[in-house]
Amino acid sequence: MYYLGIDLGGTNITAGLVEEDGKIFAKKSTPTMNGRQAVDILDDMAELCNKLLEENSLELKDIKSLGIGLPGLLDKKKGIAVYANNLNFDNINVVKEMKKRIKLPVYIENDANCAAIGENTCGAAFGDKNVIYVTLGTGVGAGIILDGKVFDGAFGGGGEAGHMVIEAYGEMCTCGRKGCWEAYASANALRREGRIAAAKYPASKIFQKVDGDIRLIDAKTVFDAADEGDEVAQDIVKRYQTYVAIGLVNLVNIFEPEAIIIGGGICARGSKLVDPIIEILNTRVYGGKLKTKIAIATLGNDAGIVGAAMLGKK
Amino acid sequence: MYYLGIDLGGTNITAGLVEEDGKIFAKKSTPTMNGRQAVDILDDMAELCNKLLEENSLELKDIKSLGIGLPGLLDKKKGIAVYANNLNFDNINVVKEMKKRIKLPVYIENDANCAAIGENTCGAAFGDKNVIYVTLGTGVGAGIILDGKVFDGAFGGGGEAGHMVIEAYGEMCTCGRKGCWEAYASANALRREGRIAAAKYPASKIFQKVDGDIRLIDAKTVFDAADEGDEVAQDIVKRYQTYVAIGLVNLVNIFEPEAIIIGGGICARGSKLVDPIIEILNTRVYGGKLKTKIAIATLGNDAGIVGAAMLGKK
Repeated sequence: MYYLGIDLGGTNITAGLVEEDGKIFAKKSTPTMNGRQAVDILDDMAELCNKLLEENSLELKDIKSLGIGLPGLLDKKKGIAVYANNLNFDNINVVKEMKKRIKLPVYIENDANCAAIGENTCGAAFGDKNVIYVTLGTGVGAGIILDGKVFDGAFGGGGEAGHMVIEAYGEMCTCGRKGCWEAYASANALRREGRIAAAKYPASKIFQKVDGDIRLIDAKTVFDAADEGDEVAQDIVKRYQTYVAIGLVNLVNIFEPEAIIIGGGICARGSKLVDPIIEILNTRVYGGKLKTKIAIATLGNDAGIVGAAMLGKK
Repeated sequence: MYYLGIDLGGTNITAGLVEEDGKIFAKKSTPTMNGRQAVDILDDMAELCNKLLEENSLELKDIKSLGIGLPGLLDKKKGIAVYANNLNFDNINVVKEMKKRIKLPVYIENDANCAAIGENTCGAAFGDKNVIYVTLGTGVGAGIILDGKVFDGAFGGGGEAGHMVIEAYGEMCTCGRKGCWEAYASANALRREGRIAAAKYPASKIFQKVDGDIRLIDAKTVFDAADEGDEVAQDIVKRYQTYVAIGLVNLVNIFEPEAIIIGGGICARGSKLVDPIIEILNTRVYGGKLKTKIAIATLGNDAGIVGAAMLGKK
C-alpha cells in the first residue's frame, strides 16, 4: 500500500507516492500559479495524483489515503481551509472538494505540522515523541508534536511560535504586534537589516553587491557579503543568530522537547549558521543544561509531502 | 475516602484533607521555618498529617494517598526534590522519606502544577482540558495541563514560561538570561521599577510613602500610590500590565488553551489589575480573536493543597 501526500505551497504543488515507512517512491510537481481560483488548484491537485498513479502503474485500490499540507488557518474537523495568506483559499472545503475528484479518504493539515510529522517519521526527529519543527523562511513557523500527536491548542489556532514577542515594543510584525520572533528570525528580517545597514554604510559589501539599489538586497545578499568577510554583514548575521537562539531557548524552557528541528530556506546555510545558535542554547537554557536535541531538518522540501501522506496512517 | 495534600512553601507548610471532588474538608498549617534541615521539615509534614487525621477521627485506612506540592526542580519518577531555591532540599527523596513516616502511597509535583490541577479540579478552570495556570508572585511561574495531564516536557524541565524572554537584551533575570517575562511581570519587577521611579521623582507618592527610604518600597507601595492617584505609580502599573499581557499573548499564540488562570499574590488586586490585561489580549492575539478564557484563580492558596491531594486520584 502507498499513501498520497500533497504539499500545496505558494510556488509549487508537489504530490508524492509515499511508502509505509515514509520513503518517497515517486513525486511530481506543477506550478501553483498563485492568484488562480481555488477550483483550478483543486483540479490540478487531483490531476497530479492521477498522473502519479498512471506513471507508476498503480490504481486507487493501491492507495490508502490522500493527505494535503497547506498554509494558513484550517478547520480540520470540517476539512476547511479558512484563510491562507498566500492562496486564494477562502473558506474552501478542501476535503469535500478533493473527495469529489478522487475516491480516497482525504486529510488536511497545516504545512508546518506536516513538515514536523515528516521529520518525525523518517527525518531528523525520527523516533522522538515531543518534537518542535521550526521553519526559518520568509516568515517563521512552527509545527509541534507532543506525545506523538500534532498539537495546535484547544481551538486549532495554537502553535504560532513565530508570533511570540521576544522584543517588547520592537519591530512591527505582519501580525499587527510588535517584536514577534518572526520579525527578527525570518528572511524578511535579514532583508530589512541588510537594507538599513546598506543605507548606513555605503562602503559595506551589502551596498556594493547591489550597486546601491537597496531594493535588490535580500537575505542572500547579507549572507554572501558576510561570507566574503564584510564586517557589517557579519554583525547582522551574528545578531540574527542571537535572535533565533532567544526564541529557541524560550521554546526549550516552555516545552523541553526531545528534539527541535530547524528547517526552512535559511537552513540551506547549514551548520555554519546553526552551530553558533546551538552554542548559545548550550549556555542559556533554564537550569543550564540543554537536554533537547537541536538538529537541521534532513528531508528538505520532502518533509511536507511525507508528513501529508502520513496523515492517513493512524 | 479522603486524600491528603500538602503545600510545602517557603513560609508555611499546609496540609489538607480533601474530598473526592476537591473540596477541602479540613486543613492545618505550621511555619516552614526555612533554613532548617530537610529531615525536620519531613517530620513536620508527617506530624501535620497525623494531627489532621486525629482531630477529624480518621485513620490511615480512610485515606487514599498523600500528595505533596513543592517548589523547585523535581525528579518525579524517582520521587526526588533535586533542587529548590527556597528550601534546604538538595537531592532529597521526598517520596521515600515520607513513606517511612506515613504508610500511604506518596506523590510529589511542582507547586505551580499542583495549583493548576487544583484550579482544574474545582476552581476557575473546572472542566477545561488544556489549562495554563500562571502565578504572578515574587517570581513568575506556570503550571501547564494539556489534554488533562500535567505537561512538563520530555525531561521534566519544561513549563518554565516565566523564563521566556520577552525583551531581548532587557533586565537581568535571576536565571542568568536577560529580559525574561519574570523580570517584568513579577512583584520583584514592580519593586525594582518603584525604586527607580522614586529615585527619579522624589515628588511621587512612592517616594513619600517610605519617607525617601527606597529600600522599603515593594509592589504594594507602587499599587497603593497608584490607587491614590499618583501618576508615576500609575504609569508603572500600566507598563506592568502591558508586560503581563505580552507574555500571556505569547502563551495563547503558542498553546491556545481553553483557559489561562492567573494566580499568585499580585492577583489579590483582582479585576482592577486583570481587566486591562484582558483588554490587551482581546486585540493582540494572533488571528485577532481571543478564544481562550482568561480568569483569576478562585481557590487562592488552597489550589496547591487540592492539586497535591488530587495527585493520588488516577
